[in-house]
Amino acid sequence: MANEKITKRDVDFAKWYTDVVKAAHLADYSSVKGCIVIEPNGYAIWEKMQSILDKEFKKLGHVNVQMPLLIPESMLNKEKELVEGFSPEVAWVTVGGNKTLEDRLCIRPTSETLFCDYYKDHISSYKDLPKLYNQWCNVLRWEKETRPFLRSREFLWQEGHTIHSTKEEAIKETNQMMDVYYNFFHNYLAIPSIRGMKTEKEKFSGAEFTLTNEALMYNGVALQAGTSHYFGQKFSEAYDVKFTNKNNELEYVYQTSWGTTTRMIGALIMVHSDDYGLVLPPKIAPKQVVIVPIGDNEEVNNLSNKFKEELNNNDIITYIDDSEKSPGFKFAEAEVNGIPVRIEVGKRDLEKGIITVARRDTREKIEISKDTDIVSFVKELLDTIQNDMLEKATKRRDELTFKADNLDDMKNILETQPGFIHANWCGDKACEEKIKEIKGCKSRCIVPDENVSGKCVCCSKEAKYHVIWGLQY
Amino acid sequence: MANEKITKRDVDFAKWYTDVVKAAHLADYSSVKGCIVIEPNGYAIWEKMQSILDKEFKKLGHVNVQMPLLIPESMLNKEKELVEGFSPEVAWVTVGGNKTLEDRLCIRPTSETLFCDYYKDHISSYKDLPKLYNQWCNVLRWEKETRPFLRSREFLWQEGHTIHSTKEEAIKETNQMMDVYYNFFHNYLAIPSIRGMKTEKEKFSGAEFTLTNEALMYNGVALQAGTSHYFGQKFSEAYDVKFTNKNNELEYVYQTSWGTTTRMIGALIMVHSDDYGLVLPPKIAPKQVVIVPIGDNEEVNNLSNKFKEELNNNDIITYIDDSEKSPGFKFAEAEVNGIPVRIEVGKRDLEKGIITVARRDTREKIEISKDTDIVSFVKELLDTIQNDMLEKATKRRDELTFKADNLDDMKNILETQPGFIHANWCGDKACEEKIKEIKGCKSRCIVPDENVSGKCVCCSKEAKYHVIWGLQY
Repeated sequence: MANEKITKRDVDFAKWYTDVVKAAHLADYSSVKGCIVIEPNGYAIWEKMQSILDKEFKKLGHVNVQMPLLIPESMLNKEKELVEGFSPEVAWVTVGGNKTLEDRLCIRPTSETLFCDYYKDHISSYKDLPKLYNQWCNVLRWEKETRPFLRSREFLWQEGHTIHSTKEEAIKETNQMMDVYYNFFHNYLAIPSIRGMKTEKEKFSGAEFTLTNEALMYNGVALQAGTSHYFGQKFSEAYDVKFTNKNNELEYVYQTSWGTTTRMIGALIMVHSDDYGLVLPPKIAPKQVVIVPIGDNEEVNNLSNKFKEELNNNDIITYIDDSEKSPGFKFAEAEVNGIPVRIEVGKRDLEKGIITVARRDTREKIEISKDTDIVSFVKELLDTIQNDMLEKATKRRDELTFKADNLDDMKNILETQPGFIHANWCGDKACEEKIKEIKGCKSRCIVPDENVSGKCVCCSKEAKYHVIWGLQY
Repeated sequence: MANEKITKRDVDFAKWYTDVVKAAHLADYSSVKGCIVIEPNGYAIWEKMQSILDKEFKKLGHVNVQMPLLIPESMLNKEKELVEGFSPEVAWVTVGGNKTLEDRLCIRPTSETLFCDYYKDHISSYKDLPKLYNQWCNVLRWEKETRPFLRSREFLWQEGHTIHSTKEEAIKETNQMMDVYYNFFHNYLAIPSIRGMKTEKEKFSGAEFTLTNEALMYNGVALQAGTSHYFGQKFSEAYDVKFTNKNNELEYVYQTSWGTTTRMIGALIMVHSDDYGLVLPPKIAPKQVVIVPIGDNEEVNNLSNKFKEELNNNDIITYIDDSEKSPGFKFAEAEVNGIPVRIEVGKRDLEKGIITVARRDTREKIEISKDTDIVSFVKELLDTIQNDMLEKATKRRDELTFKADNLDDMKNILETQPGFIHANWCGDKACEEKIKEIKGCKSRCIVPDENVSGKCVCCSKEAKYHVIWGLQY
């Protein structure tokens, strides 16, 4: 029997999603419109994401800093495209310390301007470059419609901002950070994302190009989760960030930025979870194993404690649920919270010399001898679950990946079962806009493809790009 | 020769402080008035503080969450004392998404209201209690005069907010968290802080009582760094946070909050640093050992690499400075950045079979055999430095700790050499205000003392409290 608090996924996907978020205590709505409270279970996932990504960033030479929360309007106005991109969705501080401010301050929607403003006074020679800075912080965008994790006015993220002495190095950085995101999705989140370049229409305001990491949700709707931008010298010209190059000439720096957000928690839910609640890949689960003792006797308690100790000593995060609830209640709770492995240590089972292990992803129950080397067994099982989850998600993604040769194909797919749609494109914005008229379908990314041939899916002119299209969150 | 970029500490303490902050690249002013940029070296110290404190909090059962950045004015207004305390120093968002807001939003100066607003819908029975939540975040207070780390409009902190079913348990939590701060100062920051209770005048707006952790800077001025508040049922009544107790009666929860901020970085500087720059206790130093190879030969490089590897493998954070700068420049840079131990591996030294180790705290140089077991040696040295720094700071604090029997004593001390001043007090606010007239001297804390006798330092009436007074940042 599925969880009563959770609408069935196939009945109402949107309702199912928010039910899972609430039932697993990941987040809740707050009294502040458009803002959520990230609850302990949700925040623990974010902490795990942070610790993995932060290590990767540092391995590649990045360091963390903290820029101000507020940006003066006069400073923001220096880069026209950025202002136009963000001004409809910023929040303005106009009063501080009981006084009306002369120069309004916006709450950062992103921090390119602040980093530029800092960098310009802190570099002078090519020897000072590159600067590889990142920050973990909150940002605010005044969204009209919001959904927990997927879109909210305030969200948490990391934003890397680097400056370089050559174009080549900056482009390499842009690619490298996209690789970090892509690998993180595959290796930790068990999400088979795809990557590519955004079209001119969909790229970040002010970027020369934007790379994107796109994941497909269970319902066939895409989620952009992780972008890496190459700015060239656009911002450094606007904010006057110059250095003396090796030829002793003044030159503007080459800049990148890249970010991932708490949105990734939304992706985890919509790719892996089911009617019983959250399903988490073991490598991202804040708690990996729950032990449920059944029947209060010495052997049950001793074995439960022994397992817990051995597993934790081997870096498998394990806890015992010894609360006063019934075993059935504990099972359901561990399920809804997405604990990857449950070990039932039962009095009657022990009489038969066995214990029962349950996988969260498949809900399969496995009986093993109570004398099993629990560490090896669980380690292997967690690996299997991690791999199986990626495989299952890949299968789903592939089932929902289509090809369209013309607008009728495209319409048909989007009206039957949306997904990733491969189709050729001439590169004309007008075609992109015409495609958008079909249920809001957008280009997800341009796929690197040197042998593009055939006709544009929309206008039938010669195609220049191989593009993946789809609906999006 | 002291660092040229740093004003001498004894010449101008305030200037010395900002010079150290800038020379060690801990923080810099930003173009956003009253807000700083925390640079990599400063942020790395904060990350180290976070990781240590976060582990302590979690060991005691606390979990992390994230509340919204913004508080609606209508919500804030529910608790009168809090509003009165904070309203002069908040920043108001009045425009969002190009529209004027009906209910203004303030940027959180602290989050009691947000936690209460959340808790009220998430508990019903004593079985749901306690809730032991903490968050790491940024807050904003519209300060008029600001100084890097010590006082800035935006700062980073952690704020714990817990609710309990009994008064006793909540008071125990309030005390316990003060212990955590106090121990952190002594065991990690090597700062011999004192603790006690704030007077009615100095306590947090809305608290029943406030415990405080007070450190004395090198110049004899006190810094409040770490407070723990007991709220009783004040907020829970204002925000209607009720539960059903064991007798099946509705009762308001008992609440605490406690916090520490990036201010602690300011304390570290002003207690330990010197005319050569930053001095960091090894346990809080993001980099503990620097190896400087002198003269490019195989033995120098091999030994440097061997040391680096052995030390890092034993959790002693070590790097080699193999940049193209001169050894003298590298020494000065390591000094200004406060690297606790410097190992010089020199060609000529090696011919004599030795290497030179320099302590940052005492600037003492020690020659040891190149065959020394480097891990044991450095481990012991780091422990010695940590202990010596606490001892030295304690000696300084004790030298700057005085006793006053009357206002003349007090005036004399404050005008000659300020410090912690022990003096009896009748408990009357009028006396506290009169004492404040002497150079702004405030009560730091009431010291637990069961045998208070004698007269009030101000009015000569019978004393009720043993109080420590002093100037403050």
